[in-house]
Amino acid sequence: MTKQQVGVVGMAVMGKNLALNIESRGYSVALYNRTGSKTEEVVEENPDKNLQGTYSVEDFVNAIEKPRRILLMVKAGKGTDATIQSLLPYLDQGDVLIDGGNTFYENTMRRNSELADSGINFIGTGVSGGEEGALKGPSIMPGGQKEAYDLVTPILEKIAAKADDGTPCVTYIGPNGAGHYVKMVHNGIEYGDMQLIAESYDLMKNVLGLSVEEMADIFAEWNKGELDSYLIDITADILTRKDDKGSDKPIVDMILDAAGNKGTGKWTSQSSLDLGVPLPLITESVFARYISSYKNERVHASQVLQKTPEYNYTGDKKELLEKIREALYFSKIMSYAQGFAQLRSASDEYDWNLPFGEIAKIWRAGCIIRAQFLQKITDAYDKDSDIDNLLLDDYFKEIAEKYQQAVRDVIAVAVQAGVPVPAFSSAIAYFDSYRAKRLPANLIQAQRDFFGAHTYERVDEEGIFHYSWYDEK
Amino acid sequence: MTKQQVGVVGMAVMGKNLALNIESRGYSVALYNRTGSKTEEVVEENPDKNLQGTYSVEDFVNAIEKPRRILLMVKAGKGTDATIQSLLPYLDQGDVLIDGGNTFYENTMRRNSELADSGINFIGTGVSGGEEGALKGPSIMPGGQKEAYDLVTPILEKIAAKADDGTPCVTYIGPNGAGHYVKMVHNGIEYGDMQLIAESYDLMKNVLGLSVEEMADIFAEWNKGELDSYLIDITADILTRKDDKGSDKPIVDMILDAAGNKGTGKWTSQSSLDLGVPLPLITESVFARYISSYKNERVHASQVLQKTPEYNYTGDKKELLEKIREALYFSKIMSYAQGFAQLRSASDEYDWNLPFGEIAKIWRAGCIIRAQFLQKITDAYDKDSDIDNLLLDDYFKEIAEKYQQAVRDVIAVAVQAGVPVPAFSSAIAYFDSYRAKRLPANLIQAQRDFFGAHTYERVDEEGIFHYSWYDEK
Repeated sequence: MTKQQVGVVGMAVMGKNLALNIESRGYSVALYNRTGSKTEEVVEENPDKNLQGTYSVEDFVNAIEKPRRILLMVKAGKGTDATIQSLLPYLDQGDVLIDGGNTFYENTMRRNSELADSGINFIGTGVSGGEEGALKGPSIMPGGQKEAYDLVTPILEKIAAKADDGTPCVTYIGPNGAGHYVKMVHNGIEYGDMQLIAESYDLMKNVLGLSVEEMADIFAEWNKGELDSYLIDITADILTRKDDKGSDKPIVDMILDAAGNKGTGKWTSQSSLDLGVPLPLITESVFARYISSYKNERVHASQVLQKTPEYNYTGDKKELLEKIREALYFSKIMSYAQGFAQLRSASDEYDWNLPFGEIAKIWRAGCIIRAQFLQKITDAYDKDSDIDNLLLDDYFKEIAEKYQQAVRDVIAVAVQAGVPVPAFSSAIAYFDSYRAKRLPANLIQAQRDFFGAHTYERVDEEGIFHYSWYDEK
Repeated sequence: MTKQQVGVVGMAVMGKNLALNIESRGYSVALYNRTGSKTEEVVEENPDKNLQGTYSVEDFVNAIEKPRRILLMVKAGKGTDATIQSLLPYLDQGDVLIDGGNTFYENTMRRNSELADSGINFIGTGVSGGEEGALKGPSIMPGGQKEAYDLVTPILEKIAAKADDGTPCVTYIGPNGAGHYVKMVHNGIEYGDMQLIAESYDLMKNVLGLSVEEMADIFAEWNKGELDSYLIDITADILTRKDDKGSDKPIVDMILDAAGNKGTGKWTSQSSLDLGVPLPLITESVFARYISSYKNERVHASQVLQKTPEYNYTGDKKELLEKIREALYFSKIMSYAQGFAQLRSASDEYDWNLPFGEIAKIWRAGCIIRAQFLQKITDAYDKDSDIDNLLLDDYFKEIAEKYQQAVRDVIAVAVQAGVPVPAFSSAIAYFDSYRAKRLPANLIQAQRDFFGAHTYERVDEEGIFHYSWYDEK
C-alpha cells in the first residue's frame, strides 16, 4: 500500500480545514481522530480527495511515509500530551510532530525538549486565520528544530497565505517555543487592535451620535488608507449586517456587550510582566474584555452611579472623525511598538534570535491582524535590525509626531464625555513616558528608599546610595 | 536549661528587628542564622536582652519549648524550602512554622499542604512596615491552619502595630496561602498609591511649575485631610530633604528616575489576569516602573521624538491643585475598589472566605499603605459584607460622583501638556466602564464571531448564537 505524505490528528474544524488545505496542494493525507466517526465524516464529505481515514493510532502512524510529518490539531493542554504519548510507541527517530494548536509556549518548550531525548522532532507552530484561513491559507509561525522545519518547509509554504507580492506567509521563527510565543503576541496585538476599533466606534456612537450605517461607511472609507486591514474591513462589513432573528435592526445592536477571550491576550500580558517590558495597551484591552463580561454588575452599577458628566460635543463632526482616525493609527503604532519590544526582550531571554522583520512580513496576509501597515515594520527592521523600539524608526516617528495632537484631543473629548478610552489613553501615556527624559519615578525610588531601604541611583554619579532618612532632620 | 518561647531563623534586617520586637514584648527568643557570625552580632549588640544565639539547626530547635513557634525570615524562594528541609528532622508534630517572608502565595499553598502531611503547621504571613515596622509594630497578615494561628495569636497581637483605637493590626486571614495573597495585593495597592502620588508631583512640577519646597507644603497640607496616610506623609517629608552629597539641591532632584520593584506588584497583576478581574490601575503602575527603568533608552528617545505639545496652563493654579487632590483621592478609590474586587474573586477561587472588612482594618496602622481612609472600607463591609464593589457603597459612590469632574479636567490638562498620567487615565476609564450599561464590546464579540466562530449572546434572548457571516450578503 502506498504511504501517505502527511498525517493530521484531530478532525475538529481547524484540523479538518488544514487537512483539506494540505490535500489541495497535491499531498496525500492520512487522517485520525480519537472519535472515529469524525474521521469517517470528513472522508465521506470529500470522496474524490486524496485522504485516507485511519481508525487506530497504530494504523495512522503506519500509513505515513518516513520521516513522518504529523500535524497535531487537538485541544491545547492535556490533550496534546495525551496525543503525543499515544503516538510515541509507533514513531521512529527523525519523525516530525507539528503542534498547530494554540499552545502555551512554555509547554512547547517542555515538549520539544522531552521529545528531543527520544529523537523525535517537535515543531510548535502558530496558525492564524480562523476557519477560513486554515482552509485557504493561514499565516504560519513555526518554531522548533531547524532541520525539522526544513523537512516540512515545502508543505508549509504551499498551504500558507500569500502576501500581495506572492511571498508565502511562513518563516522559521526560532527554536523550541519561539513559534507559539510569536503567535501569542500576535493574538495580544489582535486584542489591542480590536479594542482600539471598539473605542473608535464608541466615540462615533456616543459622542458624534452616528448611525450604524454611517459608521459602516466610515470604516469602509478608513480601510482605503493607512488603516487598511482585515479587522477594519470586517468591522465595516459587520456594521452593514442586519439581525438574522427577525428584528430589522443592525446585528451589532442585538449582540450582548460582553467579550470573551481564550487566554492568549492574558498570556501576552503576563509574559510582559515577567520580562519587565511595558505592555499597557494590550493589557488594558484584556482588562476591557474582563470589565465587559461583568455585564449584570455593570447594569446594576449604572443604576447606582447615575451622575454622568454633562458634556456635548459642539465642534465639527468631520474634524473629530479625522482625529479619531489619526488617534487609532497612532495608538496602533504604540501597540505594535510595545509588542515588538516584548518580542525583542523574549528573544534575548530565551535565546531565540527572532527575525522581527520576517515576523511582520508573514503577518501581512492570512492572519487576523493582517494589514499593509506591517510592511512598514519590516522596512524598519530592514533599515536597522537592532532598533530598540519601532518609534525610533523614521516612518513611525513621523506619524507619531504628526498624529499626537489628534489623540490628545480625542482623549480630552472622551474623558469629558464619559466614554471610556483605556487603550487610547494608555497609548499617549506610553508615548509621553517613552520619550520622557525625566519621569517622576525619582519620587517613587525615594519612597522605596525611605520605607524599605531599597537604595537609589543618582543623576550625577555612578553607584548605589541610601539616604539616612531616620538619622537627620 | 529553660527553653525559649519563640525561635527566629534569619538575622537579616527584617528577622533581627522582628526578633527584637518579640523580645521587647516579654518573650524569650532563640536565634539562628546560617552564617553564625550574624547571630553572634545580634546577641552582642543586645547584651541585656532575652535572646539565645544558637549555632546549629539542632541546637536551635532543641532550645525552643513545645509546641515550637518558629518564625522564618529568610530570602523567599529556594531559601525557604532549604530552611524548612533543614529544620524538619528535628521538629515534632504540632510545631508551628511561620514564614514571614515575601513569599509567592502558591508556594505557601504548596508548603502548607506538604508540611501538613508531616503534622507540622505552616503559617504563611505577610508582614508589612519595612525595617521600622518590623521593630516597632508591623501590620501582620497570617494564613494557615486556624488552630496553629490560635497558638501564635498572643505573640502576633503583641508585636503588631496598634491602630488609633488600640486594635492590633493582625487578624486570621484564612487557610494556606491567604495571608501571603493578601500581602501581595497590599503591595500591589502600594504600587498604585505611589504611582498616583508620582503623577500628582509630575503635574505640580511640569504643568504648574511649583518648586520642591512648595510641593512639600502641599503634600503636608493634603495629609491633614482625606488623603491622610503614611505615603503622603513621607512624600511631604522627602520633599523637604536636601542632598546629603554636597549639592544644596533637594535630594529628590538628585535621585535617578528609575524605579525598582521586587515583583509583588507584578504578581498581583498576573493573578488578576488569571482570575479575570480587571486591575488596570495597579498594572499601569507596574508598567510605569518598567518604563522608568529604561532610562538610557528614554533619554535617547527624547532626542529622537522631539516634537512636544505646545501647551501652557493659563488657568488658576489653586484650582488645578485642588483638582489634582480630588483626582488623587478619586483614583485611589478606584484602585482599592479594584484590589478588593480581586480579593473577593481570589477568595471564591481558593475557598479562603477572606474577611474583607478586617483586612482593611489591619492596614490602618503599621503597613506602608496605612491610612485613615481604610476605615471607610471596613465600614462599607460592615454595612454589607457581600458588596460586589466598593463603588456601590454610599461613601465611595458619593466621593466618586463628586470628584469625577476633577479627574476628567486633570487628565485633559495632562494629556494636552504631554505629562504621562497612566494611572489617573486608567482610573477614569475604569469608572466609566464599570458603570456603563452598554460598552462597545458587542463589536468585539461580533468580530470574534466573524473570524473565529466564537459565538455571541444577544440582548433580547437567552442562548448562544452564531451569525452566518459568510453565507449571506
